[in-house]
Amino acid sequence: MAPSVHSSSSTLLTSDTDERYANVNWEELEFSLTPTDYMFVAKYKQGETFSEGNIVPYGDISISPCSAIFNYGQGLFEGLKAYRTEDKRIRLFRPDENALRMQNGAERLCMTAPSAEQFIKAVKQTVLANKKWVPPPGKGSLYIRPLLIGSGAMLGLASAPEYTFLIYATPVGEYHKVSSGLMNLKVNHHNYHRSHYGGTGGVKSCTNYSPVVKTFLEAKSLGFSDVLFLDAATGRNIEELTTSNIFIVKGDIVTTPPILGTILPGITRKSVSELARDIGYKVEERDISVDEMLEAEEVFCTGTATVVKAVETVTYKDKKVKYKTGEEALSTKLYTMLTDIQMGIVEDKKGWMVEIDGCDD
Amino acid sequence: MAPSVHSSSSTLLTSDTDERYANVNWEELEFSLTPTDYMFVAKYKQGETFSEGNIVPYGDISISPCSAIFNYGQGLFEGLKAYRTEDKRIRLFRPDENALRMQNGAERLCMTAPSAEQFIKAVKQTVLANKKWVPPPGKGSLYIRPLLIGSGAMLGLASAPEYTFLIYATPVGEYHKVSSGLMNLKVNHHNYHRSHYGGTGGVKSCTNYSPVVKTFLEAKSLGFSDVLFLDAATGRNIEELTTSNIFIVKGDIVTTPPILGTILPGITRKSVSELARDIGYKVEERDISVDEMLEAEEVFCTGTATVVKAVETVTYKDKKVKYKTGEEALSTKLYTMLTDIQMGIVEDKKGWMVEIDGCDD
Repeated sequence: MAPSVHSSSSTLLTSDTDERYANVNWEELEFSLTPTDYMFVAKYKQGETFSEGNIVPYGDISISPCSAIFNYGQGLFEGLKAYRTEDKRIRLFRPDENALRMQNGAERLCMTAPSAEQFIKAVKQTVLANKKWVPPPGKGSLYIRPLLIGSGAMLGLASAPEYTFLIYATPVGEYHKVSSGLMNLKVNHHNYHRSHYGGTGGVKSCTNYSPVVKTFLEAKSLGFSDVLFLDAATGRNIEELTTSNIFIVKGDIVTTPPILGTILPGITRKSVSELARDIGYKVEERDISVDEMLEAEEVFCTGTATVVKAVETVTYKDKKVKYKTGEEALSTKLYTMLTDIQMGIVEDKKGWMVEIDGCDD
Repeated sequence: MAPSVHSSSSTLLTSDTDERYANVNWEELEFSLTPTDYMFVAKYKQGETFSEGNIVPYGDISISPCSAIFNYGQGLFEGLKAYRTEDKRIRLFRPDENALRMQNGAERLCMTAPSAEQFIKAVKQTVLANKKWVPPPGKGSLYIRPLLIGSGAMLGLASAPEYTFLIYATPVGEYHKVSSGLMNLKVNHHNYHRSHYGGTGGVKSCTNYSPVVKTFLEAKSLGFSDVLFLDAATGRNIEELTTSNIFIVKGDIVTTPPILGTILPGITRKSVSELARDIGYKVEERDISVDEMLEAEEVFCTGTATVVKAVETVTYKDKKVKYKTGEEALSTKLYTMLTDIQMGIVEDKKGWMVEIDGCDD
C-alpha cells in the first residue's frame, strides 16, 4: 500500500507500525539539510588498507585541529541520490560513476580512496540504515553525500597520514526551487573564474567551492539563480555554473563544454548526453563562446542536485537573452526521460539503476 | 639563568622545578608537529558576535560531517611565530599583519573573522598557555597556527551558519632542513599552476594547498626542494613556491612578483623588502619572466616557515642555473637582519615585535 502522506501533519506520516517513513513534511521538501539517523564511517591509515567501516549514529565527528582538511583543504565529496519506486524498491543512480570519480579526485589530490566496491557497498548500507528517510515516490529523493577527507594530523604540506571516508544522507526536494522553476543566469564577465588548467576543476574537490561562494551570493543578491563562469585562459568560453554543467541547443545539435580538467565531469551531464543522442540529437563536446550561447535556442543545466533545468534567461553585461523553455523544450523532454528512469516509471534499459536489497519490507 | 639544554637527554631539560621547558630535544627540532598542551577555541554563530573564546586542552574537536570546511573547503589559516629571547621574554613577529590577512581572506571567502584585537589576544593566550614549548633562544620558535573554519552544518553552497576560530601551536626548527640548507627548485613548466585571476591565490585559503601537493611531491621525488609555479594567464612569469614567495637579485635591484590576487601577500616578503631597502637596495614589485630569473645573480624565497632561504639552483626544462649563495649573498644578510630582530639580538626599531606579558617567570 502506498503511504498516506499528510503535508500539514506533524505526526508520523504512515499508519504502519513499522514507521516506514520518518516524520517529514514530504510535500514541502527543499534542497536543505534534514539530519537522518545514521552515517557510514571508514578510516585509512598510511601503510594499511581502508578499514571495512561501520554504520554509526549520525552526528559530529572528532578530528584533529592539525588535520589536512582543516589546514590544506584536502577533501573530496560526491553526491548521488536514492529513489523510492511505486513498487517499494529503493534504487541508486549510477553509484559506480561516483565511486570512479572519487578515485580520480583522490589521485589528483594525492589521497587514498576506497575501492569502488567498498564505495558502493557503503552507500547501500547508508541508504538501508536511513530507509525511512527516502521520500515517497515522486516526492523527492535521498541525497547521499560521500566525503573523503584528510583527517590525519600533520604540519607541513603532504599527503595526510589518515583519511576518513564518511557518508551521510538527507532527504531532498528540488535544488533550485523557485516559483517559475526556471533558471536566470548571470555570466561572470569580471575577472572571476572557477578553475584553471592544472587546477582541480575537473575533480570534485572541496577546493572548487568556497572560492565561488562570493560570486554566487552576489549574483543571488541581484536576483539571479546562479553564475555562469567563463574559462580562465581566454575569458571567452562558457564553462559551468557553481554546481552544475551547462548545455546549449540549436536545431538538432546539443553542445556542452569539453572535459579538459577545468569543468566537472558530471554524471547527469554524461547521462543526459546519452539520452539526447537516443532521441536523434547530435551531441558535441567543444568550446562554446559566450556569443554562440547568446545565439542558441535553448540553454539548460544539469547536475545531481539540479537534475535537468531549463535556463530561461542569460544576462551577459548589458545583454539579456531569453531562451525556449516549457513543454516544447528539449530540457523538459530530457528531464522527463531521466527522472522516469530514476523513479522507475519506465524500464531502465541502460543499466543505470542499482537496486538496494532489503528495502522491500 | 639560561636554560641548560641537553640534546640527548630524555629528562626535563631544565633544572627548574617549574618545568620551564617541555621535554623536547631542542637540538633536533624540525618543521613537524609536536603536540602541545593547550589550544584556543572561539565560535561565531550567524547573527551573533564572535564568542570570547577559551584556552582548552589541546586535542581533537567535534564537528558536523555537513560542515562547510569538510564539504566546500571553507577555511583559512595563518602562520606566525613566537621567539624566546636571551633575556627570557617571549615575543611575536607582526601578529597584526596575520590578523589583517585573515580578515581579508574571510572577506574573499564570505566568512566572518574575529577582530584584529581578538586575534592578537588569542594568539598571546595560546603562547602563554604553551610557554614551556617555546624553544630556548636560537633553537627554534613556537609556530602558531590560527585557523578559521566553516564549522556550521549546511547542504547547499553558502556562507556557513557557524565559524570556529582555533589556534594551536607547535615548537619548530627549520622548514627546509636539508644538509646544504639551500633550495633546489624545479620550475613547473607543465600546465600546472597554483592560482588564477579571480581565484584565492591572494589569500591564505586552505583551497590553495591540496591542489599543489601532487606537483610538490613529484618534484620532491626527483630530488628538488620545492616547485616554482608560473602564472596561469601567460605561463611565462614566476609566481611563488608551494608555500613561499620568491625574489631575484641583480646588481642593487631586488625584484619580486606583484600582489595582484594570484600570490600570497607574505609578511616575511613585506618585511624583507623593507630590510633590503634599508641597506640601499632598490626593491621592485613587477612581473618576472622565467628568462629574467635565469639571468639573475641570486634567487631566494621567503615565508614564515621558511624565513629567508637562498636558492642554489633552478631547473627549467633542461636548463639548470646556479645562483650565488653563502656569506656574500644578500639572502644571508637579510636572513641575519630579520632573525636578529625576531630573536632580540638587535633592537627592533621597526615596531615589528609584540611582547607577550607574563612570560618572564
